[in-house]
Amino acid sequence: MRSVMPADPLSDLSLDEIEARAVPLLDPGVLAYYAGGAGEERTVADNRAAWGRRRPVPRVLTGTGTASTRGELLGAPLELPVLAAPTALHAIAHPGGEAATARACAAAGTVMVLSMMGSARPAAIARAAPEGRRWLQLYVLRDRGATDALVDEAVAHGFEALVVTVDTPIMGMRPREERSPFALPPGVEQPVVGDAAARTGVAPERFFADLVDPALGWDDLEALVARAPLPVLVKGIHHPDDARRAVDAGAAGVIVSNHGGRQLDGVPATADLLGPAVAAVGGRVPVLVDGGIRRGIDVCVALALGADAVLVGRPVLYGLAAGGQAGVEAVLDRLRRELAGALVLLGCGDLAAARGITLWS
Amino acid sequence: MRSVMPADPLSDLSLDEIEARAVPLLDPGVLAYYAGGAGEERTVADNRAAWGRRRPVPRVLTGTGTASTRGELLGAPLELPVLAAPTALHAIAHPGGEAATARACAAAGTVMVLSMMGSARPAAIARAAPEGRRWLQLYVLRDRGATDALVDEAVAHGFEALVVTVDTPIMGMRPREERSPFALPPGVEQPVVGDAAARTGVAPERFFADLVDPALGWDDLEALVARAPLPVLVKGIHHPDDARRAVDAGAAGVIVSNHGGRQLDGVPATADLLGPAVAAVGGRVPVLVDGGIRRGIDVCVALALGADAVLVGRPVLYGLAAGGQAGVEAVLDRLRRELAGALVLLGCGDLAAARGITLWS
Amino acid sequence: MRSVMPADPLSDLSLDEIEARAVPLLDPGVLAYYAGGAGEERTVADNRAAWGRRRPVPRVLTGTGTASTRGELLGAPLELPVLAAPTALHAIAHPGGEAATARACAAAGTVMVLSMMGSARPAAIARAAPEGRRWLQLYVLRDRGATDALVDEAVAHGFEALVVTVDTPIMGMRPREERSPFALPPGVEQPVVGDAAARTGVAPERFFADLVDPALGWDDLEALVARAPLPVLVKGIHHPDDARRAVDAGAAGVIVSNHGGRQLDGVPATADLLGPAVAAVGGRVPVLVDGGIRRGIDVCVALALGADAVLVGRPVLYGLAAGGQAGVEAVLDRLRRELAGALVLLGCGDLAAARGITLWS
Amino acid sequence: MRSVMPADPLSDLSLDEIEARAVPLLDPGVLAYYAGGAGEERTVADNRAAWGRRRPVPRVLTGTGTASTRGELLGAPLELPVLAAPTALHAIAHPGGEAATARACAAAGTVMVLSMMGSARPAAIARAAPEGRRWLQLYVLRDRGATDALVDEAVAHGFEALVVTVDTPIMGMRPREERSPFALPPGVEQPVVGDAAARTGVAPERFFADLVDPALGWDDLEALVARAPLPVLVKGIHHPDDARRAVDAGAAGVIVSNHGGRQLDGVPATADLLGPAVAAVGGRVPVLVDGGIRRGIDVCVALALGADAVLVGRPVLYGLAAGGQAGVEAVLDRLRRELAGALVLLGCGDLAAARGITLWS
Repeated sequence: MRSVMPADPLSDLSLDEIEARAVPLLDPGVLAYYAGGAGEERTVADNRAAWGRRRPVPRVLTGTGTASTRGELLGAPLELPVLAAPTALHAIAHPGGEAATARACAAAGTVMVLSMMGSARPAAIARAAPEGRRWLQLYVLRDRGATDALVDEAVAHGFEALVVTVDTPIMGMRPREERSPFALPPGVEQPVVGDAAARTGVAPERFFADLVDPALGWDDLEALVARAPLPVLVKGIHHPDDARRAVDAGAAGVIVSNHGGRQLDGVPATADLLGPAVAAVGGRVPVLVDGGIRRGIDVCVALALGADAVLVGRPVLYGLAAGGQAGVEAVLDRLRRELAGALVLLGCGDLAAARGITLWS
Repeated sequence: MRSVMPADPLSDLSLDEIEARAVPLLDPGVLAYYAGGAGEERTVADNRAAWGRRRPVPRVLTGTGTASTRGELLGAPLELPVLAAPTALHAIAHPGGEAATARACAAAGTVMVLSMMGSARPAAIARAAPEGRRWLQLYVLRDRGATDALVDEAVAHGFEALVVTVDTPIMGMRPREERSPFALPPGVEQPVVGDAAARTGVAPERFFADLVDPALGWDDLEALVARAPLPVLVKGIHHPDDARRAVDAGAAGVIVSNHGGRQLDGVPATADLLGPAVAAVGGRVPVLVDGGIRRGIDVCVALALGADAVLVGRPVLYGLAAGGQAGVEAVLDRLRRELAGALVLLGCGDLAAARGITLWS
Repeated sequence: MRSVMPADPLSDLSLDEIEARAVPLLDPGVLAYYAGGAGEERTVADNRAAWGRRRPVPRVLTGTGTASTRGELLGAPLELPVLAAPTALHAIAHPGGEAATARACAAAGTVMVLSMMGSARPAAIARAAPEGRRWLQLYVLRDRGATDALVDEAVAHGFEALVVTVDTPIMGMRPREERSPFALPPGVEQPVVGDAAARTGVAPERFFADLVDPALGWDDLEALVARAPLPVLVKGIHHPDDARRAVDAGAAGVIVSNHGGRQLDGVPATADLLGPAVAAVGGRVPVLVDGGIRRGIDVCVALALGADAVLVGRPVLYGLAAGGQAGVEAVLDRLRRELAGALVLLGCGDLAAARGITLWS
Repeated sequence: MRSVMPADPLSDLSLDEIEARAVPLLDPGVLAYYAGGAGEERTVADNRAAWGRRRPVPRVLTGTGTASTRGELLGAPLELPVLAAPTALHAIAHPGGEAATARACAAAGTVMVLSMMGSARPAAIARAAPEGRRWLQLYVLRDRGATDALVDEAVAHGFEALVVTVDTPIMGMRPREERSPFALPPGVEQPVVGDAAARTGVAPERFFADLVDPALGWDDLEALVARAPLPVLVKGIHHPDDARRAVDAGAAGVIVSNHGGRQLDGVPATADLLGPAVAAVGGRVPVLVDGGIRRGIDVCVALALGADAVLVGRPVLYGLAAGGQAGVEAVLDRLRRELAGALVLLGCGDLAAARGITLWS
C-alpha cells in the first residue's frame, strides 16, 4: 500500500505554486484565455522579469521589527496595497465566480475591481460582500447612454470608483486564445455586456467590434469625468506624457498597465514604465500598476518606484480556480505575508517608508 | 477511425507559422539556399532579435480607432509599407514563380522588386501583373552595355525604379549552401543572367565571378544614375556616411540591408544601423530597410526609427512555397493586419504618426 | 574483476568539487538547510555570479615570484584573509562539529567565527583549539542580560571580537527548508540558544520569534559597543550609508553580507555592494564581505574592491561534511593555494598589493 | 552495400570543423592538455566570445574588388597577418611535429613562433623550412647563461626575433590537465628544456618550478633586450600601462595575450584588452594579440582595434592533428580566404584600410 503525501494547503504556497495547482484544473480553452497574451508573449514574460531586474537594498538597525501593510487609497483604508485587477468571467474558473472573489477581497481588506466583462453584475458583488470595497472597470461604449446606465448601477450599489480602460480600442491578437477557443458553459453569462448588447440590438460576441468606442479621445475622458458621480481612474497608461494628461483631464488615479501583455506584444514591461509615469504625475493623484507581480518583493519594488498600490490579475484567477474564495484569500494572504516580511527585512515599518527604498540596478 | 484536424488556412498564420508550413515542402538544397546565411548565421539571428530589442510605447486616447497602412513611395501610392525584396529563383519555391509573387504584390498594393537573379525576366512580370508596381534589382556588370540593355528592358515594361545592390563585390561564404548544393530543376532558368552570360560568352555559373563588377566605386554609381532613365535606389548600405554619400551621388533612395545576413557574418543587425542612416540622409530621399522583419510590430519599430518602408525577402519565398500566389498574399495580408492593429494600439492612425512613436530600450 | 578508481583526495579538489562530494553524504533536510536560500534563490545565485562579473587585469614583470597571503586583522596576524563565517549546527554536518572546524581554522591560521546558533558553546571551542583565533557571532536578544552573559562567556574563553548580525529582525522565507524540515539528531543541541531559552522560559524553537530582539536600532548598537569589553563587528550591512553609520556607532568592523541569500531574495549580490561600502567606510575600520566566494580569484576581486578579508560559510560546512576537520582544512588550504597563485599571476606579492588590482568590467 | 560519404577535404572546413575533425584523433590526455585552460575555463570561452561582441560595419562602393592580406612585420614581408603562436610539443599531435608546422607556415608566408617547450630544437626547424620566417619563444631562466645559449642557437639558425613570455611566473591551475595526465610517447622529447635541465642538473619535469625565473622584473627585460642580438617581443601583456612600459624597456613588439586562458581563469578576454594596449603603445612598435581567434572576421576586428597581426595556437595544433603539414596549411589557408573575403566585404583593399573599420557595439 502506497501512502499518499497530502498536498500542502494553499496557504503554504507561493503564487507560482498556486498557479501550478490551478493549471490542471482548468479547461484548456479557459487556461489559454487566462494565461495567454498577445503575439509571442514577450511582454507577458518581460512584465515578470522586469520586477526582478530591480534589486532593493535592505537597511538595517532601523528599529523595525514588524511592518504594516496598511494604507489608504482614494480616501479609504486598505489593508494591503494589492488590489484584484479587473478580469473577465470568474465563473469559468470556479462556480463561486466574482462573488467568491469579492468575499476574499473583503476578507483581505482590499479593493475588488469588477470587470465589465465579468460573469456577475455590480449588484451581485455588492450583495456578496456588502462590507467590501469595490470599483467598477468599464470600457466606454459608443452608446454613451449604456455607459451611463452602468455607472448608475455602480453608484447605486456602493462602488467607489470607476476604472476606465483606455488601451483597448481593438482587441490584441492572441494566438493561444485563437487556437483554443472555448464556449461559455451553461449558466455562465456576461450580464453587463449582455445588457449593453440587448439595448443596442447587437450580438454580445460583437462587443468589442460594435459596442466599445474604439476612437476615444481626451475629450471623451473629460466628458466622462465631468458626468461621472464617482472618481475615475484611467487604466492602460504607458507613456509619461499620457499619465500627465490623464491627471489634467481629471483622472483620480492612473494605472500603468499593458493589459497583462494581452494587447500588443513587444511593448515595454510595466516596471520599466512606472518610474517615468510617477515622475510625470508628480504626486497629484495615486499611481497604480499591474503586470507580472507575483511576489512580495515585487510589490516593494513597485512601491520604491513610486506606486501607491498594485493590482494582480491572473494570480486571483488561479487562486479562484484552485480553491474558490479560499484560494483567492490564500493568494492575497501570501502576498500580504511576503510583503510584510520583505518590508521588515528592508528596514521599513510601513508603506510610506517603502518609498525610500534604494534600488540597485 | 481517426478524424483529421484540418490545418488552419494560411491566412490565419503568423509569418513564423507560414515558414514552418513551407519548410517541409522545400527540397533540402533549396531550403539551405533560402534559409542559410553567411558563416555561423549570427547576423541572420541578430537581424531578427534586434527589432525586438526596441520596445515601442503605446499612446492612448488619441481618438484612433482604425489605422491606415497607406502611404506613398517615389511618388506613387502604396497600400502597405512592406515591399517584396529582390530574391532569386522564385520558380524553385513554387511553379508559379515570380509571376505569382507579382500578382500577390499587385493584389496587396505594394511593390515587387524583381531580382536580376530571378527565374523570370522583366517582361514576364509586367505581363503577369500589368497593374502592379515593380522595381528591378540589378548588379552592375563589368559589361556596362549588358547593364544598360537590362535597364532598357525594365523601362520598356513599366518598371519604376532600379535597385542597385552594392554589398556584393563577391559572394559571402555560406556553409549551408556549400553543404547542400542544388541543381536548377528542368525548365527553371535565370533568363537575365543567361542573357548577360551569352552576350559575353561566359558560363552562367560564373555570374558573380566573371560578370558582376566587383570593384564598383562611387563614380560608377554616379554614372549609372546619370545614364538611367529611372530613379536608382542603393541597396546594401550599412554605414551612415555611405548613406549620405549615396544621396550625394544621386540615389533616389537608400536601402539599409546586410543582404539578409548572407554576405558577412558578424556585421550589425539592420535595426541597429537604420537610425544612424536615417539621421545621415536627413529626409532628402526615402530610407528603406530589410532583414529579419517578421511582425507588424517590427514594421512599427522600423517606421519609428525613420524608415519609409521595409522589405521582406524570405517570408515571401516561404509564402510562395506554402501556397503560391495565395501564400504570398497571406504573408502580405498578415503583415498588413498586424501592422494596422499595432498602429491602432500604439495610438497612430497612419504611417506618418508612427514616426513619432517613442521607443524604450 | 573491475578495478575501482580511487577518488581524488579532498586536497586536490576545488570548492565546487568538495561540495559535490558532500552533497550525497548529507541528510536531505540538512542539505536543504545548508544549501537553501530565501525565495527562488536568485540572490544565492547572483552572489556567486557577481564575483565573476569583475575581471582582474594581471600585471607582469613586477618581480613577484611568490605571494604571501598573510595579513593582519584587528591587530593580530592572519595567515589567510578568509575566515570561517558563522553558521549554525556544525554537528549535523559531521560528528566533529564546531570543534573540528575550530581546529581546522587554527591550523590554517585564520579566525573561526562561532555562531550563536552553533552546536557547541564558546568554552568548547576554546578548549578544542586554544591557540586558534575566535570571534563570537550573536544576535542581540530582547533579554539584554542573556546577551551580556554570553559576551562574558566569550571574553572568559579568549574570544577576540563579537560579530553582531543585524540583518535578521525576522527569519527569511526559505522554501527549501520549509519543504524539507529536519529534526536535531539525538545528542546534538544548541547550547547557547538553549541557555537563553531556559533563562527566559521560552521554547528553543521560538528563538527568533521570542528571544531575538526584532527591533534593534542604532542606539542599541551603540549601547552594545559601549557595554562590550570586545570589539564589535556589524554583520549584514548592505547600504553604504549603513556602513558609515555603523562605524560612527563604534563598530570595529563592517561585514557586507546578505546572509548568504537566506534572508530576502532579490537583494543585490554582495560583490555589488562591497565597493560602495568600502568607499563609505573610508578606511576607518576593516570591511569584510561574504556571499558566494568559492575561488581564489573571487578573493582577489574582493581585495581589489577594498575588502580586508572575506568569510566563507557553506564551503566550510561542505568540507566538514566531506571530511571533518581534514575537510575544512582542505577547503581553507585550497583557497590559500588558489589565492596565492592568483596573486602571483596578477603580479601581487602580498595582500596590500592586491588592493591596486585593476578590475575590468 | 552501404556507400560511404567521403569526408569533405580539410581545405573546405572552418577552423571549428577542423577542430571537430581533430578531437577524436587525439589521445585524451593530449586533448586535455591542448584544449584545457585554467580553472573553469571562463576566460577560454570569453576569449572567443569577445571578438564576436564587436561588429564591424561594411563600407560599400570603395572600388575594392579584391583584398590583399599582405603586410610587413619587423621589417620583413608577411603574406598573412596570422602567425603560428608558440605552443608546446607538436609531435604529440602528429609525427611531423614542429617541422611540419614550420613548412606549413613557410608555405603560407607567415611566421612560425617556435615554443621553447617544443618537441624540436631551433636547428631542426631551420632545416625543415629554411626559407620560412621563424621567431623563438622563451621563458627567461634563472640560469641566464642557459638563456643566452638558447638565444645564440636561435641567432645561428636564422631566427629573426625572440618572444619572451612574461605571464608565467608560475603555471596556472588547469583542472583538465590535472585530471588527464599524459606521458610523453617514446621518441618525443623537449630538447631545449632537456638541455637547460641537463646544464643545471634539474629534472625536466621541474622546468617551471626550478628552471624558469619566477620573479622577473622590468630590469630583467631591459637586460635581456640589451644583451640579445635579436629584437625582443614581450608576450603576455594585459594592462595598457605594462604595454607602455614594455616599449620603454626596449621591446620590439607587444603581444596582448592571456596565454589562451591557461594561466588565470577570470581575467579579461584579449579582445577587451587590445584597444587600450594599442592606445598605450601609440604606434611605437607593433602590437599583436592572440586568444580565441577562429575566423577571418575576428582578424578584421583585431586589425580594426589596432593590432598589427594576430597569432593562433590551438587551431594550428588541431590542423596538425587532423592532417599534419597539410592540416596546418588548411588552417592558415582558410583564415587567409576568410580574411580576404571579409576585407572585400568591409570595403578594404588591404590591411592598412582595415584599421579604419568602424566597430559597432
